[in-house]
Amino acid sequence: MKRIAVVGGRGFVGGELLRLLVHHPEVEVTAVTSDTHAGRAVETAHPPLRGSGLRYGRREDLEPADLIFLAGVHGSTAKILDDTAALAPKIVDLTADFRLADAALMERYYGWRRDGEHAAPFVRGLPELHREEIAAADRVAVPGCMATSAILSLAPLAARGLLRDIDVDARTGSSGSGASSGDANSHALRSGVMRVFAPFGHRHEAEVSEALGVAASMTVTATPQVRGVQTLAKVDVGEVSERELLGMYREDYAKEPFVRLVNSPRGTYRYPDPKVLLGSNFCDVGVVVDGRGKALVMGSIDNLMKGAAGGAVQCMNLMLGLPETYGLTFPGLHPV
Amino acid sequence: MKRIAVVGGRGFVGGELLRLLVHHPEVEVTAVTSDTHAGRAVETAHPPLRGSGLRYGRREDLEPADLIFLAGVHGSTAKILDDTAALAPKIVDLTADFRLADAALMERYYGWRRDGEHAAPFVRGLPELHREEIAAADRVAVPGCMATSAILSLAPLAARGLLRDIDVDARTGSSGSGASSGDANSHALRSGVMRVFAPFGHRHEAEVSEALGVAASMTVTATPQVRGVQTLAKVDVGEVSERELLGMYREDYAKEPFVRLVNSPRGTYRYPDPKVLLGSNFCDVGVVVDGRGKALVMGSIDNLMKGAAGGAVQCMNLMLGLPETYGLTFPGLHPV
Amino acid sequence: MKRIAVVGGRGFVGGELLRLLVHHPEVEVTAVTSDTHAGRAVETAHPPLRGSGLRYGRREDLEPADLIFLAGVHGSTAKILDDTAALAPKIVDLTADFRLADAALMERYYGWRRDGEHAAPFVRGLPELHREEIAAADRVAVPGCMATSAILSLAPLAARGLLRDIDVDARTGSSGSGASSGDANSHALRSGVMRVFAPFGHRHEAEVSEALGVAASMTVTATPQVRGVQTLAKVDVGEVSERELLGMYREDYAKEPFVRLVNSPRGTYRYPDPKVLLGSNFCDVGVVVDGRGKALVMGSIDNLMKGAAGGAVQCMNLMLGLPETYGLTFPGLHPV
Amino acid sequence: MKRIAVVGGRGFVGGELLRLLVHHPEVEVTAVTSDTHAGRAVETAHPPLRGSGLRYGRREDLEPADLIFLAGVHGSTAKILDDTAALAPKIVDLTADFRLADAALMERYYGWRRDGEHAAPFVRGLPELHREEIAAADRVAVPGCMATSAILSLAPLAARGLLRDIDVDARTGSSGSGASSGDANSHALRSGVMRVFAPFGHRHEAEVSEALGVAASMTVTATPQVRGVQTLAKVDVGEVSERELLGMYREDYAKEPFVRLVNSPRGTYRYPDPKVLLGSNFCDVGVVVDGRGKALVMGSIDNLMKGAAGGAVQCMNLMLGLPETYGLTFPGLHPV
Repeated sequence: MKRIAVVGGRGFVGGELLRLLVHHPEVEVTAVTSDTHAGRAVETAHPPLRGSGLRYGRREDLEPADLIFLAGVHGSTAKILDDTAALAPKIVDLTADFRLADAALMERYYGWRRDGEHAAPFVRGLPELHREEIAAADRVAVPGCMATSAILSLAPLAARGLLRDIDVDARTGSSGSGASSGDANSHALRSGVMRVFAPFGHRHEAEVSEALGVAASMTVTATPQVRGVQTLAKVDVGEVSERELLGMYREDYAKEPFVRLVNSPRGTYRYPDPKVLLGSNFCDVGVVVDGRGKALVMGSIDNLMKGAAGGAVQCMNLMLGLPETYGLTFPGLHPV
Repeated sequence: MKRIAVVGGRGFVGGELLRLLVHHPEVEVTAVTSDTHAGRAVETAHPPLRGSGLRYGRREDLEPADLIFLAGVHGSTAKILDDTAALAPKIVDLTADFRLADAALMERYYGWRRDGEHAAPFVRGLPELHREEIAAADRVAVPGCMATSAILSLAPLAARGLLRDIDVDARTGSSGSGASSGDANSHALRSGVMRVFAPFGHRHEAEVSEALGVAASMTVTATPQVRGVQTLAKVDVGEVSERELLGMYREDYAKEPFVRLVNSPRGTYRYPDPKVLLGSNFCDVGVVVDGRGKALVMGSIDNLMKGAAGGAVQCMNLMLGLPETYGLTFPGLHPV
Repeated sequence: MKRIAVVGGRGFVGGELLRLLVHHPEVEVTAVTSDTHAGRAVETAHPPLRGSGLRYGRREDLEPADLIFLAGVHGSTAKILDDTAALAPKIVDLTADFRLADAALMERYYGWRRDGEHAAPFVRGLPELHREEIAAADRVAVPGCMATSAILSLAPLAARGLLRDIDVDARTGSSGSGASSGDANSHALRSGVMRVFAPFGHRHEAEVSEALGVAASMTVTATPQVRGVQTLAKVDVGEVSERELLGMYREDYAKEPFVRLVNSPRGTYRYPDPKVLLGSNFCDVGVVVDGRGKALVMGSIDNLMKGAAGGAVQCMNLMLGLPETYGLTFPGLHPV
Repeated sequence: MKRIAVVGGRGFVGGELLRLLVHHPEVEVTAVTSDTHAGRAVETAHPPLRGSGLRYGRREDLEPADLIFLAGVHGSTAKILDDTAALAPKIVDLTADFRLADAALMERYYGWRRDGEHAAPFVRGLPELHREEIAAADRVAVPGCMATSAILSLAPLAARGLLRDIDVDARTGSSGSGASSGDANSHALRSGVMRVFAPFGHRHEAEVSEALGVAASMTVTATPQVRGVQTLAKVDVGEVSERELLGMYREDYAKEPFVRLVNSPRGTYRYPDPKVLLGSNFCDVGVVVDGRGKALVMGSIDNLMKGAAGGAVQCMNLMLGLPETYGLTFPGLHPV
C-alpha cells in the first residue's frame, strides 16, 4: 500500500479526493491537513467519509509519504512547495500555481511573478496528452476544470492543425466556487442563475491557449447545477466532414479509459452533458457539423472528478505505476 | 401620498418591501437605510429596483415619516425603538423583537430579558385575526413566516376549541435564512437538502403557542426551494366531518382577501403548495380528514410576502386607512 | 374595456397571457378556449387564476371580440386564421406559423409550404423595431423567445452595419418546452441538464437571420431553470470601443420601456441574467469588449413574458391604442 | 459468476439495478428485458451503462438464470410469477405485488384480490429485520422506499413496545414517480413543489403498519429533489431519555453495514438527510427528544438505492450466499 497525504482537505476537491483514496485498492491515506479544521473529524466536512476515522491534522506535523496531494487555496502551493518536496518524492498539485509553464502568461492572468527556483517543471496532469511524462514525473499540476473539458474536446483538432483562434463557451456549476464561496453563491442568489461572471479573460483560458497552441478566448457562465462543467466551441472546419471529424476523435480516444465520444442521432442523451457524469471520471466529447463548414465541439465533465480529484487520482496511479483506472470506475449516478 | 421609510433595507425582506412600496399607489419611499451599504444604489442589492433611483442612507440621517418599517436583523429593533418612535407615529416591525407578548416566552425562546419600557404593546400583524387592533395601532409586529402559515391554517380550529397540543411540521426555503447566510446555505451545500435544522424548539413555535392558545411543538426542515413555507399539522377531530371542517374555514375566511381554502378532489394543485404562491400575498390553507378522526391541516405562503414584506404592507394599509389590498394584488407567478 | 379572447389557453403561454389580461386595466377576457379542456375551470391549469371565474370554452363557440390571441400549438394558426379573422379585426399570433416573412426560409426550417392566401402580412411583434407598424397592424406575430433575446441584444450593431455572420449561443429553461413535454422533460431527467438539443438549425435561428439581415447560426442548450432565456454572441467589432458600443445601445434603447442596458463593473448582477427578470417584461442587454476587437453581446428575458405573453400584450396595447406598458409593470421577482 | 436476469429494465429502478450488477464482482447480467424497448441498447435509457454492451431483450426469450429481478410496473409480477419461477430458483421482486402478507390489507390499499396460489410467501426484503429468512428464501419482495425509511428508523422502538399508533411524515423526490410520470411531474410543474399528494392512505403506509405491528398513518409530500426519501415521526416516549433511545439504536444497528445512527450536536449534517446519501445504500436514522416526553425519529435514504435497487442487491447477496456488501460500497456523492 502506498502512503498518501492530502494537504488542504477541507474543500470540495479535498473531500472528493479523500473519498476516492479511501476506497482505492492500493493506497492508504496517512494524513489529511486543514489549517482551519485541525483536530476535527473529516466527516464533519465530508459526510461520505462517515466511518472512515480520518481526522484533520496540521501541515506542520506531516510525516513522509509516497505522494502528497496539494489541494489548498490557489497560491498556497508556491509557499509550501519546498517543505512538501522534502517529505515526498512525488507531488500532485490541485491549485492553479503551476498549471502554466509560461511565466509571462502566469503574470498576465494571475499577476504573479514566478521566481527562478519555482519554475521547477510541473507536468500538465492530462494523461490523454501527457501519459508518459506523467508516469515519469515527480510533479504534476492538474489543469483547471473548464480547461480540462475544453482541451480534451478540442485536442484532436489542434493536433491536426484544424484550430486557429478559438472561442470557448464554458458553463460551470456552483461547486467550482468552493466550500466558502460568499453571499453571491448563497443558495438563494445562485439558484437559477445564468450569470456571466467572466465575459473574457478567465484564468482557465490561458491553460487552453497554452495546451492547444492557439489563442483562446473563454466566456464563463455560472449555471444552476452544483456539479458539472460543459464547454462548447465553434470551429471552422471547411470541407472536413462530420464523418472525418468523428474518425479523428475515435483515432485519438478509442483506447482512452476516460474519454468517450458521444454523438447519437436520436434520444435524450445525444451529446456530452454533465448530468450523466456525476461522480464519474469521464470526459465526454462530441462534434457535429452544420453542413456549411462549421463544427460545434462539446466537452462535459464532473468538475470535481475529471476536472479535479478524479484527474488527480488518475495521475497518481500513473506516477505510482498502478493501473490507471484504479479507484475511478464509478460510472456516474443518474438521474440525480 | 404617505411618506414611508425603511430601516434595514439590504436583506431579502427589505428588498421585497421596497419592491412593493415603490409600486404602491398611495405611498412614497422617502428613505431606505443600511448600516453596511449607505451610499450605494439600492438596485445593487435588489435588481427589481433597477431604475428606482433609490439609494441607501444612514439611519442617523432619517427624517420624519408617516410610517417606518424596521427590517434589520433580529435584536436591532429593541435598540432603536425610541429613536424611531420619535420620527414616526407608526411603526411596523419585521424583526422578532416584539412578536411575543409574554416576556417569559421571550426569555425562554430568545434568552432576552425585556425591560419595562420596551414592553410597549405591539399588535400581532395578522389582519385575519386582529384587523381592528392593527388599524388602530401605532406599533405592529409582523409574525414569523412559519408562524403565519401555522396560525392561519389552524386558527379556525383553535377558535372552536378543537385544538389541544399540536405538532407542526414546517418546511422552509433558503430565502428564510437571509441574504448573508453562511457556508451551510451556500448553493452547493443547500441544494437538494432535507435538513432538519430544528427538531424541536424553533422560535416560531412560541408564536404559534401564544397566538392559538395551545402548546405547540414545531419541527423545521430546510428544503430546496428559495421561496416558500409550508406547514402541516395533524389534529384529532373526532367525529367532526371534513365537510363541517371546510365549513368552518369558509365561514372564517370567505371574506378574507388573502386567505384561500384549497381543497380539490383532483388535479395537480389539490392542496396548499408554495409553488403556486410565488410573489403573491396569499396564504393558502386546506384540511382533509382520514375517516378515522384525524385531520391534516395545511398552510402555504411565500415567506417573503405573506410571511414578511407582504404581510407588513397589508398592516401598513390598515394602519394608514388605505384599502387593505393596495400594492398586493399580484396573483403569483407560475410556473417558475 | 376592450373585449379580448384567447384561443389555446391551456399551455404555459396561455396561462401567462391570461394572468396579464385579467389584471389589465383596460381589457376584459371574454373567452378562453381549449380543445382538450373545454368546460373546466381555467384555474385547474393555472393556479394564479384562482378566483377569476374563467372557464375554458370551445373555439367553435367564440363570439366577436376586439382582438384575439392565438396561443395554440405551432401549426394551428394557419388552420384557423380565416375563421378567427371573421371574428376580430385584430389578431396577435403566438405560434410560429407567421413569424417568418420569407416563404423559402419557412419551408427550409419548418418544412411548411405557405400557400398564397396565407401569405397575408403579419408584422413582427417587436415594438422596439416595429412600433409604428404594430400600432397600425391587424395581424402581429410574436417572435420566438430566443429570437427575441438575440434580436434585441444585437439590433444596435446590425443597424450600424457591425454584424456579419453571427453565432448565437442560446440557453433555455424548461417552460419553453410547453406544458406537455414528454419524458425527456420530466423533472428527474431535465433537472441539472446541460443538454445541447439543437447544435445547429434551431427554428429561432431563421428569425434572427431575417430580422437582423445577416446569416445567423444558433446553438441551443436546455438548462436547469424553469423560466429564462439567455443569448450570447461574440462579434468582431474591430476598433470600436466598449464606450462607443454602450453609446449605441443607449441611443437606441434609452427611451424603451422594456429594454435595459446592464453593464456594471462590479457586484453580483453585472450582466443580463434571467434570474432577475422572473415575471417581468424586460429584455436586459449588455455588451463587453475584450480589448482585442471582440465584443460579447448578451441578452436575457423571461421567456414566458417578453419572450411570449408579455411581448404579446405589449403589442396588443399598441394595436388598441393603449399605453404600451399597461399590465406589464411588474419589475421581476427576486430571489426565487 | 452467478447468472442474473432483470425483467423490466427500462425504468429508473431497473437502470440503477443494472448499474450495480454490472459492477458487481460475483454476478453477470445475462439478460435484461423491456416490453417497449426490446432491441435497443440499454445505454439509450441509462447513460451510466455506456459501454456495457447490454441490449434489451424480450421477456419471452428469457433463459434460465440463478436469480431474476422483477422490476416492471406494479401489477406485472403477479402476472408473470409462474413463468419466472420456471426459469430461476430465486426471485427478487421490486414491484408492490407481494409486499404485503395480509390479503385484506392488499385489497384495502390496492383493490387487488390475491388468489390462493399467488399467496406464495415472499419474505420482506429488509435484511436488518429478516436476514436469515432472506438468506433462505426463494422469493423476496423489496419494500417501498418510504416504507423502508420509516420501518428502519422506527423498528428499534417497535421492538421495545414503545410505539402505539404513529404518524409518518414522508417526503419524496421525483425519481420515485418513475421514468414516465406525466405532465404533473414535468420539470416545469414539479420544480420547487411542496405537493401533498397523499394526505392519508398512501400504499407504503400499509407496509409500515404490517412491519411494525402498529397502526400507521402516512402523509406524503412530493419535494423538489430528484433522489431522496426522508421520513419523520413523532413518538411519545414518556420518561425514556435521548441517551437511552440512542442506546437502543446502537444496540440494534451497531453491526449493520447499511444503517447509521446520525445525531450530531453541531454542524451542517446533524440529522439524517438524503442529500448526503446519493448513490449509497445507507439508511441514516436519528432520534432526538424534546425534554417533554416526545421524540422525533428520522430516517433518510436514496430511494433508488436502499429504497429499491440497492436493497434488492443486498437481498440478492444474501440469497446467493455472497458477502452482503458486495457491489454496494459506494459511500455517497457529495455535494451534488
